[in-house]
Amino acid sequence: MHQVVKGVWRYCHGETELHTPIKMRNKPISENIENLASANQAPINQADIKVAQTSRGLKVELPLQADEQIYGFGLQLHRMNHTGRKKHIRVNSDPIADTGDSHAPVPFYVSNAGYGVLVDTLRYCTFYTGTNLKKGESEGRANEVHKVGTSEIELYGYEKTEGDRQVLVDIPAAKGIDIYIFEGPDLLSAVKRYNLFSGGGTLPPLWGLGMWYRAYSAANSKDIKRLAEELRQSEMPVDVFGFEPGWQTKAYSASFVWDNNRYPNYQSMIDTLTKQHYKVNLWEHIFVHPTSPMYQGLKPFSGDFEVWQGLVPDLAVEEAKNQFANYHLKTFVNKGISGFKLDECDSSDFVHSNWSFPDLSYFPSGLDGEQMHNQIGLLYQDTIERPFEQIGKRTWSQVRASGALASPYPFVLYSDLYNHRDFIRGVVNSGFSGLLWTPEVRDASSPEDLIRRIEAVILSPMALLNCWRLPNLPWLQVDLEKNVNGEFDKGYEETRAICKHLFKFRMSLIPYLYAAFSSYYEEGTPPFRALVMDYPDDPQTFTVDDQYMMGANLLIAPLISDQTKREVYLPTGSWYDFWTNELLEGNQTLTIKPKLGQPPIYVKENTLLPLAKPVQYVTDQTVFELVVNVYGAQAQPFSLHEDDGESLAYKNKQSNQVILHWNANSGGQLERAGQFESERYLVTKWRVVHTEKNT
Amino acid sequence: MHQVVKGVWRYCHGETELHTPIKMRNKPISENIENLASANQAPINQADIKVAQTSRGLKVELPLQADEQIYGFGLQLHRMNHTGRKKHIRVNSDPIADTGDSHAPVPFYVSNAGYGVLVDTLRYCTFYTGTNLKKGESEGRANEVHKVGTSEIELYGYEKTEGDRQVLVDIPAAKGIDIYIFEGPDLLSAVKRYNLFSGGGTLPPLWGLGMWYRAYSAANSKDIKRLAEELRQSEMPVDVFGFEPGWQTKAYSASFVWDNNRYPNYQSMIDTLTKQHYKVNLWEHIFVHPTSPMYQGLKPFSGDFEVWQGLVPDLAVEEAKNQFANYHLKTFVNKGISGFKLDECDSSDFVHSNWSFPDLSYFPSGLDGEQMHNQIGLLYQDTIERPFEQIGKRTWSQVRASGALASPYPFVLYSDLYNHRDFIRGVVNSGFSGLLWTPEVRDASSPEDLIRRIEAVILSPMALLNCWRLPNLPWLQVDLEKNVNGEFDKGYEETRAICKHLFKFRMSLIPYLYAAFSSYYEEGTPPFRALVMDYPDDPQTFTVDDQYMMGANLLIAPLISDQTKREVYLPTGSWYDFWTNELLEGNQTLTIKPKLGQPPIYVKENTLLPLAKPVQYVTDQTVFELVVNVYGAQAQPFSLHEDDGESLAYKNKQSNQVILHWNANSGGQLERAGQFESERYLVTKWRVVHTEKNT
Repeated sequence: MHQVVKGVWRYCHGETELHTPIKMRNKPISENIENLASANQAPINQADIKVAQTSRGLKVELPLQADEQIYGFGLQLHRMNHTGRKKHIRVNSDPIADTGDSHAPVPFYVSNAGYGVLVDTLRYCTFYTGTNLKKGESEGRANEVHKVGTSEIELYGYEKTEGDRQVLVDIPAAKGIDIYIFEGPDLLSAVKRYNLFSGGGTLPPLWGLGMWYRAYSAANSKDIKRLAEELRQSEMPVDVFGFEPGWQTKAYSASFVWDNNRYPNYQSMIDTLTKQHYKVNLWEHIFVHPTSPMYQGLKPFSGDFEVWQGLVPDLAVEEAKNQFANYHLKTFVNKGISGFKLDECDSSDFVHSNWSFPDLSYFPSGLDGEQMHNQIGLLYQDTIERPFEQIGKRTWSQVRASGALASPYPFVLYSDLYNHRDFIRGVVNSGFSGLLWTPEVRDASSPEDLIRRIEAVILSPMALLNCWRLPNLPWLQVDLEKNVNGEFDKGYEETRAICKHLFKFRMSLIPYLYAAFSSYYEEGTPPFRALVMDYPDDPQTFTVDDQYMMGANLLIAPLISDQTKREVYLPTGSWYDFWTNELLEGNQTLTIKPKLGQPPIYVKENTLLPLAKPVQYVTDQTVFELVVNVYGAQAQPFSLHEDDGESLAYKNKQSNQVILHWNANSGGQLERAGQFESERYLVTKWRVVHTEKNT
Repeated sequence: MHQVVKGVWRYCHGETELHTPIKMRNKPISENIENLASANQAPINQADIKVAQTSRGLKVELPLQADEQIYGFGLQLHRMNHTGRKKHIRVNSDPIADTGDSHAPVPFYVSNAGYGVLVDTLRYCTFYTGTNLKKGESEGRANEVHKVGTSEIELYGYEKTEGDRQVLVDIPAAKGIDIYIFEGPDLLSAVKRYNLFSGGGTLPPLWGLGMWYRAYSAANSKDIKRLAEELRQSEMPVDVFGFEPGWQTKAYSASFVWDNNRYPNYQSMIDTLTKQHYKVNLWEHIFVHPTSPMYQGLKPFSGDFEVWQGLVPDLAVEEAKNQFANYHLKTFVNKGISGFKLDECDSSDFVHSNWSFPDLSYFPSGLDGEQMHNQIGLLYQDTIERPFEQIGKRTWSQVRASGALASPYPFVLYSDLYNHRDFIRGVVNSGFSGLLWTPEVRDASSPEDLIRRIEAVILSPMALLNCWRLPNLPWLQVDLEKNVNGEFDKGYEETRAICKHLFKFRMSLIPYLYAAFSSYYEEGTPPFRALVMDYPDDPQTFTVDDQYMMGANLLIAPLISDQTKREVYLPTGSWYDFWTNELLEGNQTLTIKPKLGQPPIYVKENTLLPLAKPVQYVTDQTVFELVVNVYGAQAQPFSLHEDDGESLAYKNKQSNQVILHWNANSGGQLERAGQFESERYLVTKWRVVHTEKNT
């Protein structure tokens, strides 16, 4: 076992496969990994790792101490704490059960003992995190005589596995494996190290942190014009306007060609939207229809099976990636498109049809279908990012599949599933594995449901309303059929007012969120993360999967769409209710009944919270007028990231660090340092939050 | 490719694995396979089968013509027609999605083109039944310009795969494979051949076809006494009385020892139940607790991981099987136990805990965990059947996992799932793959729900009420809490009356069902089967998954528990509504609103249907008094199976064929031939069913 970079250790066994996440990585390790402290000693003993060849592949044993709690494995929608569970690392479009299947499964876990483990494989490997003891281990301890019980559980006396045991990893097909171990010393540090090792977290363009609206799929130019104007006229902030499948001549598989029937003057439409300060985003997927201009060129570099009668381009082959990227540059990015929604790049199992390519497919790069399924999301992201890099601009895009080492990619995950509880858990869990996730709003059963879902999505990495089934704006009518028929809800003005308040609130959070993402980029700190990352010594946080930290200082506890009240656990310390300013003691569980439009937010004591005057949209000229809320007598400095907000110049230090300071006697102060020449932040007010302690 | 037995062809590739369903089979091929006609030519050309080694295992290609419909893959609860789907052959305790996962997945499919294919592997193989075309195949045909549509499906223009294509089989780990191909010429003949190749269908003891009642898990001797007496006093026919986990000192894992606290005089209790003419059935599972008398003996012959702190005995090792079987002979079978319920021998994925052994487990026989999971159900059945063979008696038992070549085993499958629509589909589908399934009745949301579920279960291989959560009889109170508290429903007498009518109706069907099972044993004909098996030329049957044939002449169309009406498709020919005697033309779909207590049954024209005077229970002395219903002027002969009903003597021809004949002029006649010396059937009446044609 040796150190590959400061604090990251590699255990090698046998002859590894040609294609693994590490071997296929296309982003350098962040230099900032050197800033993280290291004990200069691997957190797991080499002797405690065992690898053996089996008839089926490899068996890996890693130690698991009695009290360890295991997190990670990528975007897991059904569970947060994976201790004692089985997790199958397989990309899947409808992860309806707690099997490990996911849009973005990652063979990476972290332990509250303060380390992380990446098993470097693209195989559908399975982790058993302490599910079983070895033969005979229970013999000594299990001879207690069973007592007569009344409940079934008591009656049957289910035996749980406890004590020191193993994490087993079952890796099919492989003959060799590299295991990367990330030092802590604590859980959050291990995650930060993993993210910096991956290349650092992604920094979105400022506009990406605004509101997103995806329009009706069957819309034509006129419908688009009407929607875009109506949003501006009603002063609902929106930065990104998205097109769903209907923009193409052929969607399943995809032609990547604008449909002239629905959009006879599409370029003029894009230009108009751009003048209205919308960023235009296009839905697509990866399977190339025979009528696509890309078809013939990609054919030699595609897998041996079709999907929806289209090619599966092998983006692990440079020539295929080039063709795909160049087509997107020429046809879309150079024509004003700001980003894409990369759909269907996972794989189906649980849905009406079994689409996608078989696991036994063969690709020219040498990847087989199994490996390609676990990597295609990242290959696709890497390809689509390229044209933006070529024009020196950031994108902020969507993708439905991802994997290991994904933190540098400017893509946010989403799903066709729609359970709101699972959607919240997605925000909590994605932070363990270098991923971002949006609990997007699509349908709503009532105006209340719409609002609750919006409350959650504006406190996520991407504030997205995906109204692909609604020809009219959702607050006018949530009922699908009535919306299609143009029958509007009587109370829509009230609904719209609350939505507008929430949209504006999101816009006011942009500087704070941008700072959180800057910390993701610089330090690897997940902008959205589970409480256990910040409070690893508090066992009460070990299973909290419906609350999360957003940025440095805000604790978020969204209501699930049909709730009117919920419980909130506040960890150690003191917290301010953002809406009432009430000061609350930590280490307690509250029952709260928040008002509609006031998603539960708790501010850590001694926080400086910058809130911007909401704008309708962000431009390269936008200056944010800040009110800085001061919570507590010892409010700590807060660092804002300042740059042009859209180019890649920040990678060459063309940015400023703007530090807000507070002193109870002398008041607030703004300190600016760096090479960026304009000023994006103007503090208009320091607002001391007075409160009485709730005793 | 060569013929291994008449009409069964084997294609070999490479060096096969040491453990496969065929290599591990423990039942001889039925001699009756020679009675099936053969074209003396394999139904698939050898040249159309391709096998290639991949980095992951083997890739098999089999032909699939444009119009072929694919069925099978074992107990599939979510789909009947698997054409164009992906099916993963993996044993799983909670098959909540249509993935192929099942209690009893089988790597066997049949085509309506008239052949069957068994891929002889215990691996978690995946079948892709025409999901994808090969690269470039769509190029010529897919250049139709997409039209603007209004619905999403139209709009997106999803491409389906059509035309001649392949069945792909993805087999992990293997380096060689044998593929067995079963001639038709039609679908049913291919299934019959597969069943005879497996050893022929199982013949239940007569009592096994009666009513089953599984009692409250937390019951003690007194409770058992009360329930058993109450059933007899209220004259509800019941043949089998089942004990749930509470009978053991330790259930998870299992001690296989009676709990002296709850059952201080368990032997006297068993003897009493036996005197009351109940057959006693015991719940158990395979994982052996350290306190079990079997533990030390089995320890050397167990897998390397524990489950619920218990051993996983390797029943593929003769010594382990012997110990397990002998313990059951000595402790249970010799003491009057008639059968077992073999629980938890599948594997968990979707439930609250991830129990069972890892796929990477190793067993002394050389099986790995993956292979063992797909075979453990059959090994367990084979082991538990042995003590009954030793005493020369049949059992009729339950099991929660099974696999390939299972038709000779006297076990019926069940599940912890409870969707009634899926449960009905289970009855339909299991017949394609040599399996039996019971849609057992556990909970009910209302008396109506209870009755609808009973209506379905009495028309299945096992008429089972599994009241493990109810201390009182279910018709007294369906509400769990109230049942526990002894608060009985006001209308319970009416509910009980309908239940009693249905229980009695089941009892009246025993001779008919016994004949159907005899045909399963002799000819391989599934006693419960999809309509498409009997009507393979009628495309309307291709997807009918909520109706089935029961025995030769009855079409069953159960109501789903919350339905009050449904559609029924009647195939070609004429049919009699069993309850009204109305004659109905086939080739039509009816909408029916059946009365509670009258499950929809349609009798094929020209059928002789023997119905017995219901008995409370079957004994070795039972003589069935038959009323023979005569449907149609040309009623065909019907053959009853007559034997002692409980021993294995039928295997040595100690049985009679009792043929009912009907002639419109001379009336009915009973013809008896064979070596069994007693008479079990007495015709008391020939009842001509008069009707007017519904025009």
